[in-house]
Amino acid sequence: MTQLFLEDFTVGQTFGSNRLTVDEADIIRFAREFDPQPSHLDPETARDTFFQGLAASGWHTAALTMRLLVEGEFAPAGGIIGAGFEELTWPRPVRPGDELRVVTEVLEVRPSRSRPEQGMIKLRTTTLNQNGEPVQRSVGNLVVMARPADRP
Amino acid sequence: MTQLFLEDFTVGQTFGSNRLTVDEADIIRFAREFDPQPSHLDPETARDTFFQGLAASGWHTAALTMRLLVEGEFAPAGGIIGAGFEELTWPRPVRPGDELRVVTEVLEVRPSRSRPEQGMIKLRTTTLNQNGEPVQRSVGNLVVMARPADRP
Repeated sequence: MTQLFLEDFTVGQTFGSNRLTVDEADIIRFAREFDPQPSHLDPETARDTFFQGLAASGWHTAALTMRLLVEGEFAPAGGIIGAGFEELTWPRPVRPGDELRVVTEVLEVRPSRSRPEQGMIKLRTTTLNQNGEPVQRSVGNLVVMARPADRP
Repeated sequence: MTQLFLEDFTVGQTFGSNRLTVDEADIIRFAREFDPQPSHLDPETARDTFFQGLAASGWHTAALTMRLLVEGEFAPAGGIIGAGFEELTWPRPVRPGDELRVVTEVLEVRPSRSRPEQGMIKLRTTTLNQNGEPVQRSVGNLVVMARPADRP
């Protein structure tokens, strides 16, 4: 996969990803370690919660989104270095058996005045389930390396 | 632990957490599953990355923050139901051996006009390392249940 430098990004570019399926055991295992709440731990007790059935932790959805991003078409030189998010929402829960994919769009490209060897890009990343419904939306800023003078 | 309803929250309240230590094996295991990039996978190869040494994935820091929050003093009735974040940043990386804790502050309390049985609270959550340095900052909105009429 070609690694992309700051100069290779343009506003409106989009990048896709592989797909991965989340099963009930994955949801429960993540929840036991990081988000031990009834809606994420057990299908029975989850029925009486806000989610009305087992749902993945939002942080599990976020972590799976990162994996899809790292393995997907979006491959900045130096790796995916998140500077932070301006928006992160989970419009609907991820359920057992859902198949996820990620679409990323470049919103801004900003060279750095003080550090010419790098810059920032702003991205909108949307995680979709098998029905094309968004399960996570984010707008975040990444640090991206500028193309070195000796790499035309 | 007392469960808190919407009426129990006031602007300026703060909640603390336990502490947990992150070790090198935890960082690598999380990265293999969710963020397989050189800075998170191997202390040797991480030296030549942006982070100049092994660093936890930001999503690992976020997941550990959730665990500290779930197990901590902040215990809304119905659980911690994230509606989304307006801000999520990682001011510095989490390193092997770091000990983390979380401080949460209530920024806003908003009853719902259309759904009197619930409301929203806005929280600032800061994850600190053993030196009191922030490793994650977030501002997020949670759905919180109003006190039922039969629960004075």
